[in-house]
Amino acid sequence: MQHLKHCQGLAQVFLIRSQSSRLSKSSIPSLSVWDGHLSSRWRSTGSHGRQKYFNDRLPKFRFALAGLLAGTGAVLAYKLQQGKVQWAATSAKLPVTQTSTLPVYTLEEVTKHCSLDNGVWVTYKGDVYDITEFVAMHPGGDKILLAAGGALEPYWALYAVHQQDHVLEILSEYKIGVLNPESYKKQESANPLDPYSAEPTRHPALQINSLKPFNAEPPASLLSDNYITPSVVFFKRNHLPVPRLDPETYRLEIEGLPGGVVSLSLSELKSRFPKHTITATLQCAGNRRSEMNKVKQVKGLNWGIAAIGNATWSGARLRDVLLYYGFGPETAAKAKHVQFEGLDRDVTGTAYGASIPLNKAVSEEGDVLLAYEMNGEDVPPDHGYPVRVLVPGVVGARSVKWLGKIVVSNEESKSHWQQNDYKGFSPGTDWDTVDFKSAPAIQELPIQSAITHPAEGTSVDLSDKEVTVKGYAWSGGGREVVRVDVSIDGGKTWHVARLCTSDKGQHPAPPPPPGRAWSWKLWEIDIPIPHKAQELEIVCKAVDSSYNTQPDTVAPIWNLRGVLSNAWHRVKVKVSE
Amino acid sequence: MQHLKHCQGLAQVFLIRSQSSRLSKSSIPSLSVWDGHLSSRWRSTGSHGRQKYFNDRLPKFRFALAGLLAGTGAVLAYKLQQGKVQWAATSAKLPVTQTSTLPVYTLEEVTKHCSLDNGVWVTYKGDVYDITEFVAMHPGGDKILLAAGGALEPYWALYAVHQQDHVLEILSEYKIGVLNPESYKKQESANPLDPYSAEPTRHPALQINSLKPFNAEPPASLLSDNYITPSVVFFKRNHLPVPRLDPETYRLEIEGLPGGVVSLSLSELKSRFPKHTITATLQCAGNRRSEMNKVKQVKGLNWGIAAIGNATWSGARLRDVLLYYGFGPETAAKAKHVQFEGLDRDVTGTAYGASIPLNKAVSEEGDVLLAYEMNGEDVPPDHGYPVRVLVPGVVGARSVKWLGKIVVSNEESKSHWQQNDYKGFSPGTDWDTVDFKSAPAIQELPIQSAITHPAEGTSVDLSDKEVTVKGYAWSGGGREVVRVDVSIDGGKTWHVARLCTSDKGQHPAPPPPPGRAWSWKLWEIDIPIPHKAQELEIVCKAVDSSYNTQPDTVAPIWNLRGVLSNAWHRVKVKVSE
Repeated sequence: MQHLKHCQGLAQVFLIRSQSSRLSKSSIPSLSVWDGHLSSRWRSTGSHGRQKYFNDRLPKFRFALAGLLAGTGAVLAYKLQQGKVQWAATSAKLPVTQTSTLPVYTLEEVTKHCSLDNGVWVTYKGDVYDITEFVAMHPGGDKILLAAGGALEPYWALYAVHQQDHVLEILSEYKIGVLNPESYKKQESANPLDPYSAEPTRHPALQINSLKPFNAEPPASLLSDNYITPSVVFFKRNHLPVPRLDPETYRLEIEGLPGGVVSLSLSELKSRFPKHTITATLQCAGNRRSEMNKVKQVKGLNWGIAAIGNATWSGARLRDVLLYYGFGPETAAKAKHVQFEGLDRDVTGTAYGASIPLNKAVSEEGDVLLAYEMNGEDVPPDHGYPVRVLVPGVVGARSVKWLGKIVVSNEESKSHWQQNDYKGFSPGTDWDTVDFKSAPAIQELPIQSAITHPAEGTSVDLSDKEVTVKGYAWSGGGREVVRVDVSIDGGKTWHVARLCTSDKGQHPAPPPPPGRAWSWKLWEIDIPIPHKAQELEIVCKAVDSSYNTQPDTVAPIWNLRGVLSNAWHRVKVKVSE
Repeated sequence: MQHLKHCQGLAQVFLIRSQSSRLSKSSIPSLSVWDGHLSSRWRSTGSHGRQKYFNDRLPKFRFALAGLLAGTGAVLAYKLQQGKVQWAATSAKLPVTQTSTLPVYTLEEVTKHCSLDNGVWVTYKGDVYDITEFVAMHPGGDKILLAAGGALEPYWALYAVHQQDHVLEILSEYKIGVLNPESYKKQESANPLDPYSAEPTRHPALQINSLKPFNAEPPASLLSDNYITPSVVFFKRNHLPVPRLDPETYRLEIEGLPGGVVSLSLSELKSRFPKHTITATLQCAGNRRSEMNKVKQVKGLNWGIAAIGNATWSGARLRDVLLYYGFGPETAAKAKHVQFEGLDRDVTGTAYGASIPLNKAVSEEGDVLLAYEMNGEDVPPDHGYPVRVLVPGVVGARSVKWLGKIVVSNEESKSHWQQNDYKGFSPGTDWDTVDFKSAPAIQELPIQSAITHPAEGTSVDLSDKEVTVKGYAWSGGGREVVRVDVSIDGGKTWHVARLCTSDKGQHPAPPPPPGRAWSWKLWEIDIPIPHKAQELEIVCKAVDSSYNTQPDTVAPIWNLRGVLSNAWHRVKVKVSE
């Protein structure tokens, strides 16, 4: 019973407190303050050895778990950590279906096996598994032991990466029995709170790529209807549960400035600094990943072409805030990066994190905001309420939401998402050869464009004589889109599209200063349909102010994480008479 | 005789003075001070009408002539000005070879026809042409009248664009006779000074694309032998004759600052401002144009892959100089561009010119130099002695050589090369549809790479087991090259090359600050030769820090001027046993 309580209690506390508590190496001794009930039980066991086990391992846990919690990035961590598990083409035995011959266990028996010394057993949907040998191979590292002696479901609810067939295949290798019905029932009723139970409601039009964490994009056809993307259909890319933050108690910490740590309330942020508004496009590094998946399977959410949106953002300039609190030549001489930490946390208390180069953060032309408004309203919960960073011209992953801390530092963020994810590699690099240190963290994104109308597989009418093609185009680094070429014959001949910088009937946006073109351009063109055409292969490619252009095909830019997918976009439509 | 003297004298003075005088609209009245002999003759004619003709037309002359003098850009001006002449597939009659039946003229008779009123006759290699009707169609505008009544040779010596077969074809349409032998002899001996007679000596290894003006590149195989390209084989791209400037009398003028015009001597430039050194790559906009020519003929010098080089440059920072002479918020609020004017001049006195955006010119990170040293020595005559601008990360055309004037302005340079050349267009844009106002002047260049070894058409030995591939890679805007992918199977599979930032045996260059990677990277890789390979199609493509990459093929980036040629570079070699 002692062991049962320990193991279950540990699992529960991690999940229940994941949204509001933070567990770091240094905070381990204060475990007892989390939950009187648990901590008293914990202490009563006197199981010093177990506590020490977790204390010793937690820094490693935190790092690895960050990977797990990336949702998509998690799979990556799998390979990185061990390299021993072949996910897809595994040597997995067939799932054991003949369960009647296997032993039946009680929950009490299972929970005795919650350590490497006693064996590591887990349950899943009423079956019992001895995964002792798998612990060393677990791609996410030994935090798998968090579930030791209990149910996997609470963890898999949190880490969507496990919701894949090949994970079940691997698990099936370790099946040793089944739970008796009473135990299974008891376990089910004891299921901990779903950390995603307090998620905001979302627009029904969104196409969901992952529910927990929530990742969704609007239908592509909606995307080019508005120069300013309505917040409700702006793509959502969450790595963790959405934290519910109280604007009254919200504090933003700033570290690394000469005057020591700064703590800033929301009202101070709003009143102390001029409100600055920019219109800027954010794009996920994985936008258009689905096209890479067609070449060869990649790891990550299967985004279509709509993990991109354009919005107005208002807030304080990061530059103003840093200068106000003492940033100057002294700091500039030492620091090279500005790190951001979110208030979205995993079960170990590790926050989502990222960093940007110092010069982007502090230059006048960088336009980096601590944004508290999106499209003229409070930033919605899915987009970082009450405050998010907005780094225009840079991959969305650096615009940290639910901002909790800013650190001016000599180093990049140590977070998983800065170090071991969101980087580009050669098509020849696979999970056996990848060295994440060899590539820079993605910051500015390359030139991009896509066709939002017509849709793949639809028909155009020959009697219309012309086909109207629409889409978006954008480039990173403030490089303005200067031209979009469109072809309806697969790229043999090209036409130049009209570029729009406002909604129809609105005044076009004034031209941006050089290097500060943060917004996309929508484009449109009517192209005559050739007389005898039966099918059109519509293609677009954009050119930015540095005259960079998109690569022709996907395969040569394929990379194992499926990021930076910016080849010509191609849409085939039938011509009907 | 009067007319002869006028016409010949005019031709001579333009040519003789083209290196040292400047003719602007406002300076027209001072024609008389140029040359006592000429001006007295000019005045003695009392031909007020003719002087008025030139006065009225000179502004237009200057603009159009700038195009002509671009050498390559000249052809462009042809189309722009009139759109009536089809150069290649013209309706030209066959050259008249049966000259014996044509009238014979004296030089005196020819020189009477030096105006539209009297007809416009010219001579070329002893033949006489009545080009009166062609004047309106002359792509370079009516400065063709400069040669009226005299020989074309002195002009064609200056404007290399005429040295093409189709120009002779057009000319042949207008042939009306031949010069008598005495006249031809007299004319030959009277040939004006060759404005290119004082050109510097050049390294014999250079491969010459155009002699007058001088344009040449080193053999590609030499290029990757040195991280710092020796000045003697650094590509030369001159638009006009090289001016010979006296460092003692050299003055640099600066306009557009609150304190009025500044005039600065070379020694003041050197002593008044800190000497700043950067290593930076310069690339011609037309580098690799020859590959575009293979897709479809373009207008311009047929550069190979070596119109690029990397050198150290020392001089005063432009920023320091502008700040010293009063640049501040007042000017910054109004100005948007910094214009540069060379001391290389055409026959009308129009200087080579270009401009860059103000923020590039004055930001600390822009690193724009007024360079007086290249690779540790005085900037050589071909590279801008005594002072040139060095705009790192930007197309070579903006790094104005033989710098005479800097203008801080609200406008871009009005020069031909800023307005009507060095811009990119869609492959679907031709000379009939091009609108030069529709595209931005090229500033930052896109990602580039090329293979310098092995050479196209050579053989590799199967017994060597591996093929060593070498090349260069660079990107504009200070974006660092982060990866070069190399394929030997035409792009099906890819290998990652080693990047070098120094010569062999030297310490690698320290990593540049973000956005200030001005230097190329040399790269090298040994790839196993497949057993049964008979031919290898070696391909390279580079990726920069914004993860921009090169397009796969040339045709979709083809443009009428053949600039921005940065598709994958491909080299085919045989495999010998």
